[in-house]
Amino acid sequence: MVLNRIEIKYYKKPKISKSILVSGLPGIGNVGKIAADYLVETLGMEKIIDIFSQYFPPQVFIGDDSVVRLVRNSIYHKKIPRKFDLLVLVGDFQGTTQEGQYELSGAILDIAKELRVNMIYTLGGYSTGKIVEAPRVLGAVTDEDIVEPLKKGGVVFPKGEPGGGIVGSAGVILGLAKEVYSIRGACLMGETSGYFADPKGAREVLRALCRILNIDVDMSEIEERSREIEQITEKMQEDIQNKVQQKEDLGYFG
Amino acid sequence: MVLNRIEIKYYKKPKISKSILVSGLPGIGNVGKIAADYLVETLGMEKIIDIFSQYFPPQVFIGDDSVVRLVRNSIYHKKIPRKFDLLVLVGDFQGTTQEGQYELSGAILDIAKELRVNMIYTLGGYSTGKIVEAPRVLGAVTDEDIVEPLKKGGVVFPKGEPGGGIVGSAGVILGLAKEVYSIRGACLMGETSGYFADPKGAREVLRALCRILNIDVDMSEIEERSREIEQITEKMQEDIQNKVQQKEDLGYFG
Amino acid sequence: MVLNRIEIKYYKKPKISKSILVSGLPGIGNVGKIAADYLVETLGMEKIIDIFSQYFPPQVFIGDDSVVRLVRNSIYHKKIPRKFDLLVLVGDFQGTTQEGQYELSGAILDIAKELRVNMIYTLGGYSTGKIVEAPRVLGAVTDEDIVEPLKKGGVVFPKGEPGGGIVGSAGVILGLAKEVYSIRGACLMGETSGYFADPKGAREVLRALCRILNIDVDMSEIEERSREIEQITEKMQEDIQNKVQQKEDLGYFG
Amino acid sequence: MVLNRIEIKYYKKPKISKSILVSGLPGIGNVGKIAADYLVETLGMEKIIDIFSQYFPPQVFIGDDSVVRLVRNSIYHKKIPRKFDLLVLVGDFQGTTQEGQYELSGAILDIAKELRVNMIYTLGGYSTGKIVEAPRVLGAVTDEDIVEPLKKGGVVFPKGEPGGGIVGSAGVILGLAKEVYSIRGACLMGETSGYFADPKGAREVLRALCRILNIDVDMSEIEERSREIEQITEKMQEDIQNKVQQKEDLGYFG
Repeated sequence: MVLNRIEIKYYKKPKISKSILVSGLPGIGNVGKIAADYLVETLGMEKIIDIFSQYFPPQVFIGDDSVVRLVRNSIYHKKIPRKFDLLVLVGDFQGTTQEGQYELSGAILDIAKELRVNMIYTLGGYSTGKIVEAPRVLGAVTDEDIVEPLKKGGVVFPKGEPGGGIVGSAGVILGLAKEVYSIRGACLMGETSGYFADPKGAREVLRALCRILNIDVDMSEIEERSREIEQITEKMQEDIQNKVQQKEDLGYFG
Repeated sequence: MVLNRIEIKYYKKPKISKSILVSGLPGIGNVGKIAADYLVETLGMEKIIDIFSQYFPPQVFIGDDSVVRLVRNSIYHKKIPRKFDLLVLVGDFQGTTQEGQYELSGAILDIAKELRVNMIYTLGGYSTGKIVEAPRVLGAVTDEDIVEPLKKGGVVFPKGEPGGGIVGSAGVILGLAKEVYSIRGACLMGETSGYFADPKGAREVLRALCRILNIDVDMSEIEERSREIEQITEKMQEDIQNKVQQKEDLGYFG
Repeated sequence: MVLNRIEIKYYKKPKISKSILVSGLPGIGNVGKIAADYLVETLGMEKIIDIFSQYFPPQVFIGDDSVVRLVRNSIYHKKIPRKFDLLVLVGDFQGTTQEGQYELSGAILDIAKELRVNMIYTLGGYSTGKIVEAPRVLGAVTDEDIVEPLKKGGVVFPKGEPGGGIVGSAGVILGLAKEVYSIRGACLMGETSGYFADPKGAREVLRALCRILNIDVDMSEIEERSREIEQITEKMQEDIQNKVQQKEDLGYFG
Repeated sequence: MVLNRIEIKYYKKPKISKSILVSGLPGIGNVGKIAADYLVETLGMEKIIDIFSQYFPPQVFIGDDSVVRLVRNSIYHKKIPRKFDLLVLVGDFQGTTQEGQYELSGAILDIAKELRVNMIYTLGGYSTGKIVEAPRVLGAVTDEDIVEPLKKGGVVFPKGEPGGGIVGSAGVILGLAKEVYSIRGACLMGETSGYFADPKGAREVLRALCRILNIDVDMSEIEERSREIEQITEKMQEDIQNKVQQKEDLGYFG
């Protein structure tokens, strides 16, 4: 055997007649990754595929059991009764090169074709560069008629945002889905400062996704993590304001 | 299916007995891109091919309709009655790597062979590093006998210019056309400062091209845009001169 | 013939029913390389394979006989009577790119499959960033049941170390062995400052390996080199301390 | 047709029973390139092969006739009566990436095999970092028995030089020739400061090569160019010395 540039390892090939793929890889504020990992965990999804590739860093992680874990992307599956089969793509990394971004997206879309995916949601962050009180969820779509159903789910479509388009996996998967694989899809981008891993942006993306897919996900834990982050950032902002105030006070008396 | 390094998507295969390919991709002063885009728009050309590739950035743009648009090159077609079929190559990017430059040029020349192209014009900019009053159009050719007809179109061939040769798509397409694909061609380079997107250089390139191809193109809009740019740069130069004058005046009285 | 990305040159294909592969390529403190080179030399192993590749630098070394030596990895062989066939991978470089790391590891595992390797030990260094008196040997495994036998050989498995996982050949070979090639393995990492080629870390790794494999290796020469290094570093530390003392003394009287 | 990573264009396939390949590509002091270009010109050799590749920069040069010239490597041929067929490899660039260095060297060795090359001389420079009065020619070989005949040609083999081995085409061609293609060869390195294109180092390499191959080459022009360079560097050194002297003089009186 010879190692392929991308190695796909199937653990199970579920019988699927119609499925939806949600993708959340590391990126801005890790919004997409946090949201997708949360889905996998909270819904108790089953891993059906591992993807290894020379487009990921040459690295293993070591678990608490001292067992090595080669970096990867993975696809999890859960049948949502009377609705559809849900597939969620998560991973340690996006492809680290331009070529890797395209080839990995192609491999994922090959799998999507095989697992009869007819709609893809890529999740990501949209960097605002400052702390966001109430993060919006911005949308982009492969076909104009997808805009309305997303709006009903609370997604907004402000003109000219995001200005630079979407860079990386969340964009390329969608672009190739439309142009080469004839699969429809949308990108949901949660606003985030972009300065740290942001569960708040992820929570908003998840809320929108659940409304759109009409599925129930227990949000209690991500709510908790969002509140923690909120407290930390509020504290930080107070500290900053206090310092500004002190300076002003000093200035007044100075 | 497996994603190719370069994905060619044909929308239509026109019956062509003899065609001419004009290429204008982003580059110095965006001269080639502006000229080629203008041709496509003004002649109302029809898109027949999209080219997607891992040699372009992993990126989608988002339109005003919120629909994603994977970055690409495209070929447009229009039959010029009793003359030839015109093909114009435009795009968002050139290949971003050395390998990409060669492979994409090869793919474009494969298409050119298939669409019976017997002459290629690559359009580009020639950076002068300063504002140019009356930009010249410099030429380079695959075969010496092409020089004369181009000269009649107003193209100049000063010895030793451009000194460093032609780097990027405008050069490689021509070089491979000559050496590997046996297609003749020429490069038309409009002088430009190189500091901003320059419709004036593009206008000159277009004028020369229209004379050479003996085709009519409504130039009114690009004339307008050139005048605007001229006014802006004249204003800038006046401002600079005023400041210099002021300094000199101050110096005189100081 | 056409040059492959990886050229495997077999000098001999020994009849093997069960073998163990030890890999020691250049890396942190060159711990793995020193240990593996020492094994090859001291056991008088026979070279059976050379690996050349475009993933190594484009370079030849020149021997004292003025003969060029293209950079390479090599596999040496020795039958350990009544135990197993020992294979040791050594080399001038690891693959210099991410793609090279994966492809070379794949090629090595292809060979391992062919030579009936059922256990792989990758040797490496673990950088502590400071001089280590008594370097520990840290372990990581492909399967949890390998931990106990390694512990008996003196290998330690502290939780959370190494924090960043294992980067490079020692990690990727193991990760791919587990996920793609179904070969079991472990990584032995000798603690080292990481500031220079460190025979002391290598000696500890070798000691552990010999205990685990239950083989005898004459350690006298590496002991000698370790003592030399110890004396040099002790001398350096004394010098530093003297200087600190001098400064303090001066400070006292100053 | 699809463009290959390396495109070989044969203009003529001479009947050859035994040939010698001399390679001189750009590198340190351009010593190898100057020497090989000189051979081609002075012997009036005939071009039989062009090599184009995506491992060269995406660039065309423009000749005085305004004709583009895609960057390339080329092989020239001349039958040396009653001796052998001489092949000389020259070019604009070496491969610009590690992969390119290996693949291009492989392609050149494929050609060498086909043209029955049984001995390769790669020419290069050896950087001394200072002006060299009488440049030596250093040698390295694929097989020890080649040392003696080269010594008779005036090549020297000082132990430990060049210390870092040979990097780039001159080394890789030789290394692959020995290990993968079973062709014998040697590298001749002319000493050079490395600061500018150096005909003097090239002249010494050529002299040695002619003695070794027992061929006559009119050296008058390269002698002339070497003398010019010598005068320029002598003048530069005098200027420097004068300045040093002036400073010293000033120092004395100051």
